[in-house]
Amino acid sequence: MAGKDVGNSEEKEQKDIGITVKKSEDFSEWYQQVILKSEFADYSAVSGCIVYRPESYLIWEKIQRIVDARLKKLGIKNCYFPLFIPERLLKKEATHLEGFSPEVAWVTHAGDTELDEKLAIRPTSETIMYDSFARWIRSWRDLPLRTAQWNNVVRWEFKHPVPFLRGREFLWVEGHTVFASKAEAEHEGLEITQIWEDVLKEYLAVAFFTGRKSKKETFAGAEYTISLESVLPNNKAIQGPDFHHDGQIFAKAYDIKFLNKNGENEFAYQNTWAISTRMLGVMFGIHGDDNGVIVPPRVAITHVAIVPILYDDTMDQVLKECRKLQEELSSTMYHGETLGVLIDDSNYKPGWKYHHWELKGVPLRIEFGPKDLEKKQAVLVRRDTGVKITVPLHEVTAKAKEILDEMQEHLYQKSVAIMNTAIITVHDMAAFEKALDERMIVYAPFCNSPACEDQIKAQTGAKTLNSPLEQKNSEMKCVSCGSVTKEYFYFGRSY
Amino acid sequence: MAGKDVGNSEEKEQKDIGITVKKSEDFSEWYQQVILKSEFADYSAVSGCIVYRPESYLIWEKIQRIVDARLKKLGIKNCYFPLFIPERLLKKEATHLEGFSPEVAWVTHAGDTELDEKLAIRPTSETIMYDSFARWIRSWRDLPLRTAQWNNVVRWEFKHPVPFLRGREFLWVEGHTVFASKAEAEHEGLEITQIWEDVLKEYLAVAFFTGRKSKKETFAGAEYTISLESVLPNNKAIQGPDFHHDGQIFAKAYDIKFLNKNGENEFAYQNTWAISTRMLGVMFGIHGDDNGVIVPPRVAITHVAIVPILYDDTMDQVLKECRKLQEELSSTMYHGETLGVLIDDSNYKPGWKYHHWELKGVPLRIEFGPKDLEKKQAVLVRRDTGVKITVPLHEVTAKAKEILDEMQEHLYQKSVAIMNTAIITVHDMAAFEKALDERMIVYAPFCNSPACEDQIKAQTGAKTLNSPLEQKNSEMKCVSCGSVTKEYFYFGRSY
Repeated sequence: MAGKDVGNSEEKEQKDIGITVKKSEDFSEWYQQVILKSEFADYSAVSGCIVYRPESYLIWEKIQRIVDARLKKLGIKNCYFPLFIPERLLKKEATHLEGFSPEVAWVTHAGDTELDEKLAIRPTSETIMYDSFARWIRSWRDLPLRTAQWNNVVRWEFKHPVPFLRGREFLWVEGHTVFASKAEAEHEGLEITQIWEDVLKEYLAVAFFTGRKSKKETFAGAEYTISLESVLPNNKAIQGPDFHHDGQIFAKAYDIKFLNKNGENEFAYQNTWAISTRMLGVMFGIHGDDNGVIVPPRVAITHVAIVPILYDDTMDQVLKECRKLQEELSSTMYHGETLGVLIDDSNYKPGWKYHHWELKGVPLRIEFGPKDLEKKQAVLVRRDTGVKITVPLHEVTAKAKEILDEMQEHLYQKSVAIMNTAIITVHDMAAFEKALDERMIVYAPFCNSPACEDQIKAQTGAKTLNSPLEQKNSEMKCVSCGSVTKEYFYFGRSY
Repeated sequence: MAGKDVGNSEEKEQKDIGITVKKSEDFSEWYQQVILKSEFADYSAVSGCIVYRPESYLIWEKIQRIVDARLKKLGIKNCYFPLFIPERLLKKEATHLEGFSPEVAWVTHAGDTELDEKLAIRPTSETIMYDSFARWIRSWRDLPLRTAQWNNVVRWEFKHPVPFLRGREFLWVEGHTVFASKAEAEHEGLEITQIWEDVLKEYLAVAFFTGRKSKKETFAGAEYTISLESVLPNNKAIQGPDFHHDGQIFAKAYDIKFLNKNGENEFAYQNTWAISTRMLGVMFGIHGDDNGVIVPPRVAITHVAIVPILYDDTMDQVLKECRKLQEELSSTMYHGETLGVLIDDSNYKPGWKYHHWELKGVPLRIEFGPKDLEKKQAVLVRRDTGVKITVPLHEVTAKAKEILDEMQEHLYQKSVAIMNTAIITVHDMAAFEKALDERMIVYAPFCNSPACEDQIKAQTGAKTLNSPLEQKNSEMKCVSCGSVTKEYFYFGRSY
């Protein structure tokens, strides 16, 4: 429940754990340092795979609980399908195979035995699940079938890995649902998108724009994809959680039919959707600063770090008062859970502890020493702004909750500002290219043709992010090919 | 929230879902049928890997919550390490490699690219975790390091797979902890074993005997292994959760050293421990009967199935009363959670519904029809005994909780009886072999020599299960080789 004891090499250690670059000057290097030095993640012996250390994994658990409760309310039931997918199953839906096969890790041997058929490690579970769904679903009475699984997936990317944001193994929940009608299936899209939006806004404090993916960027095997896209402080866009409406595409490939109420056999309508541990990286990348991680209060494990200022003559009284504070705070309800509160009574100097808990991103620090004991007060320091206030002891709990709420809202607003400042609307390719060179996210009319998107990519390096679901629908000319379109798209150089 | 509507083929379906063999006559066949027909699990397209359908997965989630809360109380922190283990890491501890390598699934390719080094799918995570631990641990201040991960592991068994009990992929929590002293590490053994015993007894209602594994059966790389062994109704033993004290064996292989308080470098002391989804199978196998699964109330998702007896003229009133009952019951606290209560208002006949919810193992059924409406009563039917009682409506909630508690205790006592009846003490090989032929678990003095155990295995097909931690310590002769020993061991033909 604390830091580390003082050692001879205290100063050296202090230097080791500090971040040596400014976030504003070199985001990539800053990000790597902040993730590693905060002990949120570590590299592993397997290239491209990280260790999710407790500091980050426990936050993921919290996100799991939040999302899982919302999904269960919708009637979605968790299950678990095998990690392995036989090659023949993966091959059944051609677009899907094409989308994933370059990144599939293949198991070819067990012990010394070569397998008869090589097995894919799931990059996603459509193919193995739908093989079962085809057997389970007979009639409209078996529908809707709404399942999800929390698991690990592997996509053997050959691009440069970045902890949480891009790696060869990640954790997620993948939802796979089957309906008797397209309308019901599409309605689920609204429910799921609403959950994603609430989680990003209310908990992760991450701004986003929701929209439909271009034809080229639509999920392999889906009719359309809805995505939430966020913007990192280096103005790079990154895709967050998504929702895919598959129509009857997979149903036809995997023969998922049901007897409808008219006694006719009909292919079912399907959706898939997911949120992954990538969001940890998005959250850490957006909120952190030159002192370390900043964890939004609603997903923090430790909300308050109490640092006693210890001198021999007042040590016992100061510690006693800190423990009283801890007890009071940790029995306080904060949005349906109790606050996480630690006392750092290690032998390090107060300054070391301040830096340590800042690095770890604890939202609120309380400093308490002999002077505070005397004046019956405590000093509260907010992690994101660094603002210090002195509060009478009996007001600490109320004030702490107030600060946490303010901080949560402030982090979100900052993220909104980062996003809004990054976006610029353009209507011709000269402005498009200039904006990209200035590292902006571009908002431009686009015809949604895959060939035209390829052309833009080749010319500028940018790809579409998504297209807002509601637009004015006036006729415009595509920024690249000039053909008529009614849709704006976001473009960017993305992760 | 209910079964299925009535179809033309109702009778056929009813027959399909019934169990066609008696548990007492053919346990293996009964077990397979009960697991599949209850829709608790299904076979998958990958040989030896099952689908954990929601009916069983949601129970596993409940076990996770129970175990996780206990582990968190001990200060154990969850994390997540890669699925993959490079071959060179797996090779570092020779005994460990030897123990697992015949069952390792190997990834050799990613996309079309052959990997430079083949990667094992984790059969357990010692080797990948300890590689990190060696970097993280510097001094006594970094200890204890107590971590666990909930994940999937793969052991490519070539024996006949049995759903939950033996398969190529299963789910578990694996604990990996590091201490500065042997005493602390061994103390954790008491804490963890206590959790395992409480979970089996209080929640799964599964009887067990705790003991130390023989030298031959000790975990590959451990100094000693403590296991909980249970007995299935076919008198076969099956190993449940375990605890391994590794001493400094892994620390030496993976170079996990710390600077102790005397300023000297010392190898750390380690433990590993686990509980897995195998326990679902043990629980279903022990408690189920010829009508289907029986889920112990403390781990049930649905505790009560209300079946209304519907006639046209009283339908509305009966359903209204059922909904009142549901509301009352589902807002009732039962051991810290609310009761799960469903109303089956589908169009099937009541008899169909009774069978359906019996098959699914719901602990308590409430029947409610026009006569009950008139008399302000309800009929409560307990799943395990089939005992029906009629209770005034205002007493239903209290009585339901009472029945659930009685049932929980009764299931455990039945499991104890199965276990005790299965065990016989012998002191010579003639009695040993006779007992095994009669499908008993044998309790016999044994010298604990691996060579002697090999000899017994060759002669009888039995292996040791474990040896009670506290014994009388009088001198006896080993049942096989006749050398002096002070220990009894359990032996059996096991899963």
